[in-house]
Amino acid sequence: MSTTIRVTVWNENRHERDPKHPAGKVYPNGIHGAIAEGLEVAGGFAVRTATLDEPEHGLSEDVLAETDVLLWWGHAAHEEVRDEVVARVHARVLDGMGLIVLHSGHFSKIFKRLMGTGCDLKWREGDDHERIWVVEPGHPIAAGLEECLEIGPEEMYGERFDIPAPEALVMVSWFSGGEVFRSGCCYTRGLGKIFYFRPGHETYPTYFQPVVRQVIANGVRWAAPHDGPRPTFGNAQPRER
Amino acid sequence: MSTTIRVTVWNENRHERDPKHPAGKVYPNGIHGAIAEGLEVAGGFAVRTATLDEPEHGLSEDVLAETDVLLWWGHAAHEEVRDEVVARVHARVLDGMGLIVLHSGHFSKIFKRLMGTGCDLKWREGDDHERIWVVEPGHPIAAGLEECLEIGPEEMYGERFDIPAPEALVMVSWFSGGEVFRSGCCYTRGLGKIFYFRPGHETYPTYFQPVVRQVIANGVRWAAPHDGPRPTFGNAQPRER
Amino acid sequence: MSTTIRVTVWNENRHERDPKHPAGKVYPNGIHGAIAEGLEVAGGFAVRTATLDEPEHGLSEDVLAETDVLLWWGHAAHEEVRDEVVARVHARVLDGMGLIVLHSGHFSKIFKRLMGTGCDLKWREGDDHERIWVVEPGHPIAAGLEECLEIGPEEMYGERFDIPAPEALVMVSWFSGGEVFRSGCCYTRGLGKIFYFRPGHETYPTYFQPVVRQVIANGVRWAAPHDGPRPTFGNAQPRER
Amino acid sequence: MSTTIRVTVWNENRHERDPKHPAGKVYPNGIHGAIAEGLEVAGGFAVRTATLDEPEHGLSEDVLAETDVLLWWGHAAHEEVRDEVVARVHARVLDGMGLIVLHSGHFSKIFKRLMGTGCDLKWREGDDHERIWVVEPGHPIAAGLEECLEIGPEEMYGERFDIPAPEALVMVSWFSGGEVFRSGCCYTRGLGKIFYFRPGHETYPTYFQPVVRQVIANGVRWAAPHDGPRPTFGNAQPRER
Repeated sequence: MSTTIRVTVWNENRHERDPKHPAGKVYPNGIHGAIAEGLEVAGGFAVRTATLDEPEHGLSEDVLAETDVLLWWGHAAHEEVRDEVVARVHARVLDGMGLIVLHSGHFSKIFKRLMGTGCDLKWREGDDHERIWVVEPGHPIAAGLEECLEIGPEEMYGERFDIPAPEALVMVSWFSGGEVFRSGCCYTRGLGKIFYFRPGHETYPTYFQPVVRQVIANGVRWAAPHDGPRPTFGNAQPRER
Repeated sequence: MSTTIRVTVWNENRHERDPKHPAGKVYPNGIHGAIAEGLEVAGGFAVRTATLDEPEHGLSEDVLAETDVLLWWGHAAHEEVRDEVVARVHARVLDGMGLIVLHSGHFSKIFKRLMGTGCDLKWREGDDHERIWVVEPGHPIAAGLEECLEIGPEEMYGERFDIPAPEALVMVSWFSGGEVFRSGCCYTRGLGKIFYFRPGHETYPTYFQPVVRQVIANGVRWAAPHDGPRPTFGNAQPRER
Repeated sequence: MSTTIRVTVWNENRHERDPKHPAGKVYPNGIHGAIAEGLEVAGGFAVRTATLDEPEHGLSEDVLAETDVLLWWGHAAHEEVRDEVVARVHARVLDGMGLIVLHSGHFSKIFKRLMGTGCDLKWREGDDHERIWVVEPGHPIAAGLEECLEIGPEEMYGERFDIPAPEALVMVSWFSGGEVFRSGCCYTRGLGKIFYFRPGHETYPTYFQPVVRQVIANGVRWAAPHDGPRPTFGNAQPRER
Repeated sequence: MSTTIRVTVWNENRHERDPKHPAGKVYPNGIHGAIAEGLEVAGGFAVRTATLDEPEHGLSEDVLAETDVLLWWGHAAHEEVRDEVVARVHARVLDGMGLIVLHSGHFSKIFKRLMGTGCDLKWREGDDHERIWVVEPGHPIAAGLEECLEIGPEEMYGERFDIPAPEALVMVSWFSGGEVFRSGCCYTRGLGKIFYFRPGHETYPTYFQPVVRQVIANGVRWAAPHDGPRPTFGNAQPRER
């Protein structure tokens, strides 16, 4: 296993730069900055960031080739992500790169493409309180957590979440307004591992919370590629015994 | 597919006969009576009941041989269920009989034996309100339901529920006191299908609710055996082509 | 449950009309004709067919709206299937229509879109013998089968099959040349159920075999939609209790 | 993550000590000796062994308390394993200890108890050739492997294998005599992770093969406990926000 995991934190980074939007005050260095900081504090990661308005959205072939795990936060500009970059990320996931999809990234092109479904859900901006229950405490993503993560005020996401049934469902959210949500969902696509993690609305300082940072660091470690076999495809002669 | 599904509703039937316990007023014909009535109203089932204090707990070899799907409600007397009857039910499930485990049946000998885990959970008798969200609306057990089942006052069950991850998770409960619970869980063991469904504390008239009866009827239909192959085991010679 | 399941059998139907290709002799009424015949013999289905070279590939909005389960066989002309028809089929699956993907349909646009992966595999045309083992005999798709399906001469498909792990793996193929393959794979996407079934190369009379027809009929019954809840998405106010 | 994983290799160790049985020549230090040697060569493990005929089968409370991952090989004397030791191992698995069940360990009391099923299968001692295909190459247990493990002569195990559907199916075996088998199966029970791995009949030097040793070392790493939450159970008051 490689000792250092190479991480790229991708962020749309639009709300934070909009002077009329509260996100800039909550995340003065961008959501990507807060997430990257959390990983650096945790240690064991070589972290870089990339954002929508950089050339190629900051996700050139070279950057992806050097990325073990990609994190994805997007919200208002999913449609501006160019299809060839989505195809590139998709190919890299199938090739083994891990992918952590955060919060409103549920509606990103890359997540919908990997899931094959609509990925829609219920939502509400208001005064909900979120609490996350760990339902699979033996899973690596639950390492170091308590059995309940008291998130506090957050945007509500409610079921039905239109995703394929996760291979492992690690966490379920409770919202004070009356909804539940599958908040920590694991998948494999090709050689790549995918973890969807719910919290992180841009108006709340969620990505500064230690437990949220712990989940993200655990998710990155879980999604990091192993040196597994690269399958051969196509016309095949019988193997010699 | 057989046109009529032969169902046996098993109930501990102790609370209801205890004059000091409120269950007798809520379920004058026993919990088994209320469940059996719901299935008869739904139609398509040949229903009988069996209770703990009958000879062999009402679950003789003959009764089980003529049962396509067994329902199980128990609470205070799990330890009084004799091991040879548990073994008999276990063998019949592996042989294809469906099993619907209800509410406090989570702690029954038969459910723990089929799950291989402790099956423990959090609980609270109080003033909780339960609401069940359908997270897998395409599943046969969700037929005819709305996306949210407003159960109302019920005993709380909360995660961590110590079960193997269900093969299909159809429903998740929300409780007003702050907990979530995997409330509709599907399994296969041997040739048999198992459905755990959460609601049904003995002090609430839950088994008279039409939506609860609908879920139970759906569960029985889903768990009814198909005429699949009966595998052969043991020493095997190569098949002729 | 609806008594009659409305089925549309879609076939590329190119090999069979090519006078130089052996498929026309094996399937004089087309692969779709053989499959439709099998379903009609089984009974309980209202079957129509549709092929690539019909207007809209035979899959107009009206046809899909009246289809409970769609079967898909394609091979050489996947790229000729128009993207708007693929999007239409995709939307209908998410809306609840069942989909049975057969053999070389693994590389169809619709299957890849629903899976989110490359769906590639190993293959060999030669003198392989295929035998299918039922590994999940309690599954509805195994109804009426024996534990081993002796398929006989067939094209080989070998692992790694680049699909998401199936929600239920019902069958595994053995090939005399030395390969294995996950041959009966169940998925849910949105409200729709999907069954991939491996056999059926155009040069073998596989779709005339009674056991193959049984599996397909079982698959159609399993994939037929249930009248489940149609989830609501988007901005949501708290429900009243 | 702990740097060194504490491993106990448990072996029935009867065939090897029987002068009339070929196992003693194949495994002069016992099957446990060969497996322990493989782990020591791999590095990163503190390995001890335990066998049936030691006091408490070598599995005292103290030994289990100091064991992160237990390996289990048994065959002819499953019934001699005392029930209180099985209960002790079961409790430790639910408490987080990993368990690797090897070959004929499929019929051990502990595996059957954790699975809840009969765990039976087909078998044949003869001249079969085994080949294992990696069907989930992105799984940690596939690290460092090629896509096909050429095992060579081995006892045949064939489907139907009467187990619950694995949470991850990593490998499938092909046998020259015509059978397939789910050979690498992952489960979670309580906090513990379980990996069943098929090869290893006592008359073949399978546990000296480097690829087999690699799979076992990978399995131990995967099954090692994480420092996840220890759930609380029982009567629960509402959490304060």
